Amino acid sequence: METSIAVNINDLKQSHPDHWKKAAAIRILSADAVHAAASGHQGMPIGMADVATVLFEKHLKFDASNPDWADRDRFILSAGHGSMLIYSLLHLTGYADMTIEEIKNFRQWGAKTAGHPEYGHAKGIETTTGPLGQGIANSVGFAMAEQALAARFGKKIVDHYTYVMAGDGCLMEGVSQEAIGLAGKQRLGKLIVMWDDNNISIDGEISMCDVTDQRKRFEAAGWSVFSVDGHDPVAIDKALIEAKKSPLPSMIACTTKIALGVEGVENTAGGHGYNIKDAQLQQMREFYDWPYPAFEVPSDVKSAWEAIGSKGAAARADWEAKFAALSGAKQAEFTRVFDREPSKKLSAAIKRLKKETSENAPKMATRKSSQTALEVINPIMQETIGGSADLTGSNNTLTKDLGWFDADNRAGRHVAYGIREHGMAAAMNGMALHGGVRPYGGTFMCFTDYARPSMRLAALMRIPVAYVYTHDSIGLGEDGPTHQPVEHLAISRATPNTWVFRPADTVETAEAWELAVTSKETPSVLSLTRQGLPTVRTKHTNKNLTAQGAYVLAEADNKRKVILIATGSEVEVAMNAKALLEAEGIGTRVVSMPCMELFAEQDEKYRRRVLPAGPVRVGVEAAVQQGWDKWLTGERGKSNKAAFVGMNSFGASAPAEELYEKFGITAEAVAQAAKDLL
Amino acid sequence: METSIAVNINDLKQSHPDHWKKAAAIRILSADAVHAAASGHQGMPIGMADVATVLFEKHLKFDASNPDWADRDRFILSAGHGSMLIYSLLHLTGYADMTIEEIKNFRQWGAKTAGHPEYGHAKGIETTTGPLGQGIANSVGFAMAEQALAARFGKKIVDHYTYVMAGDGCLMEGVSQEAIGLAGKQRLGKLIVMWDDNNISIDGEISMCDVTDQRKRFEAAGWSVFSVDGHDPVAIDKALIEAKKSPLPSMIACTTKIALGVEGVENTAGGHGYNIKDAQLQQMREFYDWPYPAFEVPSDVKSAWEAIGSKGAAARADWEAKFAALSGAKQAEFTRVFDREPSKKLSAAIKRLKKETSENAPKMATRKSSQTALEVINPIMQETIGGSADLTGSNNTLTKDLGWFDADNRAGRHVAYGIREHGMAAAMNGMALHGGVRPYGGTFMCFTDYARPSMRLAALMRIPVAYVYTHDSIGLGEDGPTHQPVEHLAISRATPNTWVFRPADTVETAEAWELAVTSKETPSVLSLTRQGLPTVRTKHTNKNLTAQGAYVLAEADNKRKVILIATGSEVEVAMNAKALLEAEGIGTRVVSMPCMELFAEQDEKYRRRVLPAGPVRVGVEAAVQQGWDKWLTGERGKSNKAAFVGMNSFGASAPAEELYEKFGITAEAVAQAAKDLL
Repeated sequence: METSIAVNINDLKQSHPDHWKKAAAIRILSADAVHAAASGHQGMPIGMADVATVLFEKHLKFDASNPDWADRDRFILSAGHGSMLIYSLLHLTGYADMTIEEIKNFRQWGAKTAGHPEYGHAKGIETTTGPLGQGIANSVGFAMAEQALAARFGKKIVDHYTYVMAGDGCLMEGVSQEAIGLAGKQRLGKLIVMWDDNNISIDGEISMCDVTDQRKRFEAAGWSVFSVDGHDPVAIDKALIEAKKSPLPSMIACTTKIALGVEGVENTAGGHGYNIKDAQLQQMREFYDWPYPAFEVPSDVKSAWEAIGSKGAAARADWEAKFAALSGAKQAEFTRVFDREPSKKLSAAIKRLKKETSENAPKMATRKSSQTALEVINPIMQETIGGSADLTGSNNTLTKDLGWFDADNRAGRHVAYGIREHGMAAAMNGMALHGGVRPYGGTFMCFTDYARPSMRLAALMRIPVAYVYTHDSIGLGEDGPTHQPVEHLAISRATPNTWVFRPADTVETAEAWELAVTSKETPSVLSLTRQGLPTVRTKHTNKNLTAQGAYVLAEADNKRKVILIATGSEVEVAMNAKALLEAEGIGTRVVSMPCMELFAEQDEKYRRRVLPAGPVRVGVEAAVQQGWDKWLTGERGKSNKAAFVGMNSFGASAPAEELYEKFGITAEAVAQAAKDLL
Repeated sequence: METSIAVNINDLKQSHPDHWKKAAAIRILSADAVHAAASGHQGMPIGMADVATVLFEKHLKFDASNPDWADRDRFILSAGHGSMLIYSLLHLTGYADMTIEEIKNFRQWGAKTAGHPEYGHAKGIETTTGPLGQGIANSVGFAMAEQALAARFGKKIVDHYTYVMAGDGCLMEGVSQEAIGLAGKQRLGKLIVMWDDNNISIDGEISMCDVTDQRKRFEAAGWSVFSVDGHDPVAIDKALIEAKKSPLPSMIACTTKIALGVEGVENTAGGHGYNIKDAQLQQMREFYDWPYPAFEVPSDVKSAWEAIGSKGAAARADWEAKFAALSGAKQAEFTRVFDREPSKKLSAAIKRLKKETSENAPKMATRKSSQTALEVINPIMQETIGGSADLTGSNNTLTKDLGWFDADNRAGRHVAYGIREHGMAAAMNGMALHGGVRPYGGTFMCFTDYARPSMRLAALMRIPVAYVYTHDSIGLGEDGPTHQPVEHLAISRATPNTWVFRPADTVETAEAWELAVTSKETPSVLSLTRQGLPTVRTKHTNKNLTAQGAYVLAEADNKRKVILIATGSEVEVAMNAKALLEAEGIGTRVVSMPCMELFAEQDEKYRRRVLPAGPVRVGVEAAVQQGWDKWLTGERGKSNKAAFVGMNSFGASAPAEELYEKFGITAEAVAQAAKDLL
């Protein structure tokens, strides 16, 4: 049932004068900042100021002086273009780093007040939003992490809500739809979404592009739905009280007017972004009884807001007492997982696995090697939460005793994400941002495409999620070109702050996993084969060679004339090519390069030792050449004769061995490419 | 309301013996092919054989001997892993190129029967499916194209349905959710989706990952919903009759059993993919009264199917008569647009625009240049259908007199896609595949990420859609890093069969558009600025220089020692750097490189003429270096001293000019980089 705006705005001034002032402070600050920047969006902060005020005043559990309190409620502004809403709230409630200077510098170089809320810029920004739908999809991960940690550390220590503000744009995005489905299935009762139901998007009225009955849509996915006048503080409060009681995730449809009180643009698409002239800003001040100059908040209003900012101090102190009552081991473990520190047992366990593998030298698909590594890691690092987008048996993400995470089993640590690659990646971001858990999730590497927007945000936010991407080349065989990545390694490598691991065998896979689960601020893509690969690291090293990005796997026997550089499944091809070349007296070094990004981070001396000038170079990877050139022709013009053996088209449907033959990625072809350069 | 399976399967054999046999032919052929390939999926073809039989026999308008008949109904297998369903149907109904040999070669090199249906491999495959959700999202484009063409050429000539089979996997994907929303808004009454409601996904029962009431979900989006026992031919027929009458898009929930009749795996996840042993295959033959050897279809069953395949011949002949009755001009136009031929007026009109621009030399953002080009193209090429994902005023995709495409205005040629970048890209694929229309659609370039899976499929299917991607670098300014592409040019360039145009001014933009709308089988990405750019092509050429990919924009005045290579907004930077260098007596050539892919296609002689060995090279692009190296250090080891000035991190929020300064993409930095190499 739709709710229209019943409250008479002018009555509100009389009936709720304190609320009115507090909300006005948000509205005017937001309008002032956008006006000063001549850029940004005032419509949403103005429209949702009443909802935000009630939420922060009556419900949100937080302590502005202790923004990192682990059990705080999380507030996520999914409609990130409305960033001035959160900046205003953080400033008003007294977050130390959100000064009025920051507000005045909205959208300027070096300010904490970026165009869209950027995680890490200021405390209180729980996630980076702006690309629509991401915040609401992250929030599912936040709510899952809360449940997982409550199961692990007890409800005395972890018991909080996740509140989201989302706009029409968020709800139209596919990723939000995946998130809604996942949250409904998971019965995330402590997730509460407040929908800014203002009926306006950039192009005009929502009816231009959508006729969805959103209330019915959420109900269909297993949510509780409430409808309120988004300018009525009493109704908003009541709905929040009810939503918190529901065992299901809740959606509160808040009917609002965008740019409320701004003459000429109220309730229109024109009110959305920067568009308010000086005269309108003055008129708006009059409407809101706000006679103060730009960026000035009168002390009584500021004090009222600061009281809201500090009202959680008692609850926080209470929580700290409870935390202090935990056993020392439990406290240490809680601190460790929130600090993203690895377990002390990890390093030795990985070394043991590597040693054992080097000795036994199994032939194994690296997707299976990945499971082998996870079997070692998961019992040691209880903070991992795995999952798969409905390909558990193919991605090998489920290990012994992990259990399925579900409403009936919050101690389970493997999530059935369903066929929702994007929703999975976004939820993983939310989990990592919440802290205390370390998510990994699997799908076929080709479907990295679906997850891209969230993967980019993980890199931008500097959070260490791990992607288990199996079936990583034409080597997957018969499923054909729709399922065969050729450009996906290049795509992830093009993305800043992303480690792309393409391990050659079980040893390198273990090393890659060690790096992924000890990473503090870089996401990891693990590119893993469907097909079996021989163990190439048959000589055990305690050192994690993958951490260097590339290393000499096999030195030339004859005089060194050729360097073959390969990754993953093509290391075997390179080793076989080396044998062919050496048989002809051509000394050939094989360099395994499981992570280009980490190799690029090594000092020049090491890089030159691995890839000395002189010998011809052949790169081998069953993917496009893009990204390889700097390792082939040399960095910055220090060039070598070089060639690349890989893919320059999409793949095809046939058994894997035949595809390698047909596309010419063979030991013979590699040896010939090298000889052509000599 | 859910419908369970009411029909007694054994009764069906008696009550509908002919149907039973026809459906059995699909089932056994599918099982045989998967068994022979030891790979693939029999569960869905077996489960949906009854629905498919009724659809093809009673409803689908097609003529197997004339598969290209423009007014045929479209059949889209969104659950593409069930490819043997469509291959069986095409073979049985007598499509000439789907021989029994092709069926026997399922999933083998060179066969038309790839692992997933590949558009272009065989007639009757309307789109490539496999990546879940794409087919149903394409189908919205098919249905929109049908409506647009009916408005243009009349319902006598264009009047057909689009039928889709989708599984649970399709419906969980976000892209399908966007498509459902778009179809509901557009009231696409001739779109009918048959949902294979078998309650099974790869990981197990659907309840593991989803509790969505799909009937309610579709209703919420404005669809008609029907529920049937998917093994009851009478009920299926009735539902299809009703669905065709609805003015809304229809979803028919077909309750089925996956792998029906296969002992041990019926109704389980085990029945989904290759998993049937010899004994089970034998038992299945007995269950279906099918005593024939592998790949053999008895002549009576084959004849019955071939009669279905030819039953549309009369309607097709009737249509041809109607077509012949059209005016010659209308026939020619219809043929032209389906052949993807450009209008004869195009070339001259583009030349006029270029000449005028070179003379007036406006300063203009290329997103605005794009609109200028579209103002010329759209009236001449009435087959274009534009649109934007709710950024019409920013992407400048709407031109004068285009009108909004809507249920009330099917002659409109601009679509309000809503905040659905992925759904838009998928719908554009469907439109292009339908034929007769040429779609383009816009969003911010950063949100190319959302559209990636469909963009990849456009490239793979070789269809000429055009993406209008504006705000293409840090030059967009204050919106900050979430909105600033840095890796997106590299991403599209890494994708085979994709033209990435980054025009430097209005002239190059017009040239890029000319290439995009005359392309027959390559999608085009237009990377366009938010910020104003000077006209650099002030000397008119009739020749389309962008077609060569790169060309000498400005020759060295002094002795040539430096070549600067730049794209888009950085061509201005390069020209200014040239001025600085020439002032110091350093001869500098500037090469504009609006399309790397087209440059790579030129002969070596031309490439060497543009980029001769000798001078040092500096590349300039406000994006990551990946993809540039081959133009800098030279192709195949023919190296030059080279440098790159661009981005090696995400962007930031600030005014554009400041960002260029801070990230060091300036004329001074480029000149210095060149001098450092000399």
